[in-house]
Amino acid sequence: MKWWGWGRDDVAFTHEDKPALGPFLGRHLGIDVAAHRARPVAFDALRIPDPSVTSRLWLALEQAVTDRFVSTDALDRVVHARGKSLRDLVHHRRGELGRLPDVVVRPGDEDELATLVHAALELDAVLIPFGGGTNISGSLEAPVHERRTVVSVDLARMDRVLEIDEASRLARVQAGASGPRLEEQLGVRGWTAGHFPDSFTHSTLGGWIATRSSGMQSDKYGDIAALTRGLRVVTPVGTMVVRPVPSTSTGPSVREMVLGSEGRLGIISEAVIHVHRVPPARATIGYLFGSWAEALAAMNELAASEIAPALTRVSDPPETAFSFATRKAPTVVDRVKDAALSQYLGRRRGLALDDACLAFVGYEGSERHVAAQKKAVARLFARHRALVLGRGPGVLYDQKKFDTPYIRDYLLDRGALADVSETAAPWSRLPTLYERVTHSAREAFAALGVPGYVMCHLSHSYHAGACLYFTFALRPAPERDELEQYDAVKSAIQQEFVDAGATLSHHHAVGTEHAQWLEQDISAPGVAMLHALLDGFDPGANLNPGKIVGAGQPDRERPASV
Amino acid sequence: MKWWGWGRDDVAFTHEDKPALGPFLGRHLGIDVAAHRARPVAFDALRIPDPSVTSRLWLALEQAVTDRFVSTDALDRVVHARGKSLRDLVHHRRGELGRLPDVVVRPGDEDELATLVHAALELDAVLIPFGGGTNISGSLEAPVHERRTVVSVDLARMDRVLEIDEASRLARVQAGASGPRLEEQLGVRGWTAGHFPDSFTHSTLGGWIATRSSGMQSDKYGDIAALTRGLRVVTPVGTMVVRPVPSTSTGPSVREMVLGSEGRLGIISEAVIHVHRVPPARATIGYLFGSWAEALAAMNELAASEIAPALTRVSDPPETAFSFATRKAPTVVDRVKDAALSQYLGRRRGLALDDACLAFVGYEGSERHVAAQKKAVARLFARHRALVLGRGPGVLYDQKKFDTPYIRDYLLDRGALADVSETAAPWSRLPTLYERVTHSAREAFAALGVPGYVMCHLSHSYHAGACLYFTFALRPAPERDELEQYDAVKSAIQQEFVDAGATLSHHHAVGTEHAQWLEQDISAPGVAMLHALLDGFDPGANLNPGKIVGAGQPDRERPASV
Repeated sequence: MKWWGWGRDDVAFTHEDKPALGPFLGRHLGIDVAAHRARPVAFDALRIPDPSVTSRLWLALEQAVTDRFVSTDALDRVVHARGKSLRDLVHHRRGELGRLPDVVVRPGDEDELATLVHAALELDAVLIPFGGGTNISGSLEAPVHERRTVVSVDLARMDRVLEIDEASRLARVQAGASGPRLEEQLGVRGWTAGHFPDSFTHSTLGGWIATRSSGMQSDKYGDIAALTRGLRVVTPVGTMVVRPVPSTSTGPSVREMVLGSEGRLGIISEAVIHVHRVPPARATIGYLFGSWAEALAAMNELAASEIAPALTRVSDPPETAFSFATRKAPTVVDRVKDAALSQYLGRRRGLALDDACLAFVGYEGSERHVAAQKKAVARLFARHRALVLGRGPGVLYDQKKFDTPYIRDYLLDRGALADVSETAAPWSRLPTLYERVTHSAREAFAALGVPGYVMCHLSHSYHAGACLYFTFALRPAPERDELEQYDAVKSAIQQEFVDAGATLSHHHAVGTEHAQWLEQDISAPGVAMLHALLDGFDPGANLNPGKIVGAGQPDRERPASV
Repeated sequence: MKWWGWGRDDVAFTHEDKPALGPFLGRHLGIDVAAHRARPVAFDALRIPDPSVTSRLWLALEQAVTDRFVSTDALDRVVHARGKSLRDLVHHRRGELGRLPDVVVRPGDEDELATLVHAALELDAVLIPFGGGTNISGSLEAPVHERRTVVSVDLARMDRVLEIDEASRLARVQAGASGPRLEEQLGVRGWTAGHFPDSFTHSTLGGWIATRSSGMQSDKYGDIAALTRGLRVVTPVGTMVVRPVPSTSTGPSVREMVLGSEGRLGIISEAVIHVHRVPPARATIGYLFGSWAEALAAMNELAASEIAPALTRVSDPPETAFSFATRKAPTVVDRVKDAALSQYLGRRRGLALDDACLAFVGYEGSERHVAAQKKAVARLFARHRALVLGRGPGVLYDQKKFDTPYIRDYLLDRGALADVSETAAPWSRLPTLYERVTHSAREAFAALGVPGYVMCHLSHSYHAGACLYFTFALRPAPERDELEQYDAVKSAIQQEFVDAGATLSHHHAVGTEHAQWLEQDISAPGVAMLHALLDGFDPGANLNPGKIVGAGQPDRERPASV
């Protein structure tokens, strides 16, 4: 993982094979894609404070995991200091590293994890679990004034599928398994977990659980809360074991307390999760709606129907335009098709390509099931004047679905800031929510006097509502702090979420980034419940302090004691 | 509701229209159905202590709900003292009333509820919410040594559907709505909640939520946790509002903390729940399997398939025999059919009726969907040698499904004790779990030297497992306390659940009845999490104290202060 950006060092996003993208970005953000405006500071130029680890703690950590897996290496500490939120990227690129962890430890199994956790707690250190480091809600960063030793617990070595219970369709998996490691080990035995978040290539099972992740196919497989049954969590009072039962009425669910706990109750060691046989047939089909209103209505009707596809997604007109702009160089055939499509839309359906909404529906299962579902969706969408585009766009979507996070670095290099904010709300509120959020974002751009772009897709259709996923970008004015300008837009969007009755995040957790909206989302008594649980279970605030209920972090005022 | 038993005064279970039942009960429990052995004591003979309510509290309650809805009436207090567990029934019938509530209040809306809760907390009273009074886990009874004033908060007046959001398929409903009141108000507008627990006729939405209830059709509609989206809960620190969003990643779920909280975090005022259009077609089809092993295998395969029926249920041979024994007098045609069936099973399929397992699968949706599902299930079950019995048994099942709770009173009148214990486990563990539980129950009967019967059905099929629902009955020996003998059997069953990796209850909550197995179910750190939450949120232990985490109830040692 790059210390200053997303993903692998040898992978980057480029406009060079996408002829329409440069002009598109020039038009909407006023940037020249050929010109680099900004670069991360050089690693050697970073000011990295010495780690503060007592010899007692060092010895205890070494005893737990052997010296090979206790690191105070500068790059290690920088990589483990934060996740990959836009704020994280900007700070890191500037060389503003925040409160670096003092030491990074890499346990190889649960025994080692438990030993190091108890040793660290004994010596009043702070523990922050680290999976793939992809969090975008500020869940991985130590409080800036933390004076105790901060230990980043990297779970990457704990990446094995330990057991598959074939009769129960359950797999026992170590928490540090990344998406690819998980699917690879399941795949050789003919299984899949079906969990594919955008961060899939780097994020881990433990991270998904700790932040209540959703994946692209969660319509079918369920989000991480639905597919996680059993848990083992190393806590201050021993290892918590949640049995992998399919359902239980055993009081307030402790399983659900760990889901979304961001390391504040302990460190997840392993989980027992649903697995499914790799489906014999899969298809992602593209559709084009004539308007956002028709697209929303169609998706709502689909959610209420007896059809249950694996993936539902529809982009608003600005995101549809962006999708078209990121296409690789079209062939002559493509051009002819495009012209024909445009004509068809205009003449036969009275639609303008500017209002078009590109949708994808994913199907999985037996050939027969996939065929029946496709047919039923085509019938349903036809009532909303949708055009079936076939498999082509779906194949493209599948190919580039994990590339999106690289775009932020590309834009940062060119002086633009891009980020996402997503939420969920009942179906009846989605049209207004959409109007208010896009309006507020554009007002924020105007108030700042900067070029900006906001686009949206609906994904994750449920019985009673769906997720709206907004992406926004702006080219900040050079005379003011860029993060201040970013905050103005991001805050405007998040505030509209909670004002419109939506939640602060559908699948990106609270962290520190969203904590200011928590009380508006779950009400003051809800925050009090979280305080009771978190403060009562971790009275010393050693477990990833300051996350979720960020205000009044008890740790910030404590004297150093390690 | 009868003060000493289940349901309406004018309804009772009888053997008189079931010619095979008397001989069946004689054979297995050694009871003579014609002879009454026991009767509840007369209400007038009950020793009812005076209520202890200070004039200050009385005045505050009256101000909250008006004097009409504050009651210290003896019958009111007796009815509100407990739920309807076998233990509750036996104690009440004996006139051992336990710690009666001092006063019963009936708020008419959330404002009244909030006013009375805050007044009662101000004066350090204990609050126990009461819905339909059907709980069978001891969740409604005050601790026996409680010295503070105990206020039973009966929510029956808060029984309205306040709003239906048709576009989102969500209804906002007051917590006191009973099953029939809820379905009646939804039904006139063409909707259903689809939640049908055995206790449906009396139990309430708030009670379902507070105990994590499941219903007969939960395979399709989801259990109460799945169908509850929004919540309003009156808590010590104000009214908690959970937004009715379809999903959220907002930290440990406060919604899930309220689910199963049994009044320990506050009193649920209303909920926003999923509703569905009343399906155009419905069918419950009966099937007969030749063995329990084949039945389990078929149900597992069904759960993994692309078919998603509304109800799945299969009885083991003893429960199948009991079902046959409770049939109304068969007609000549029935007898001919039975003989033909017996012959068919024996000759053509090599099966004995003694090993037969009666199954039901319920279908709902469009005519076309129901027909396709039925066909697919018939095909799948045929591979497991099942016989399709058609709609007849299903119609009978639908007719008598809510009568079951009356049987316990009928048996108590005849000197026998009957109760249920249910659990859930992964598919791979179900066969062993079943063997161990039935074996242990029969060993317990033998150790006691009493006649007993244990039977089981599988219901609620999930991706990774299912619920096993055991019913047991015994005729206790007269020389020892009957509850002691009951406990020996019940404990043997519950202990097998947790020993076999299953949960202590799939849908009957913890209460006080199951609290002793909680730590074995969710591990000591899990119990510590519950303590942190419950004790931290309600430090004075005013909210239904002693439930869920029952040990060391802080309230028991407190001096009276009201």
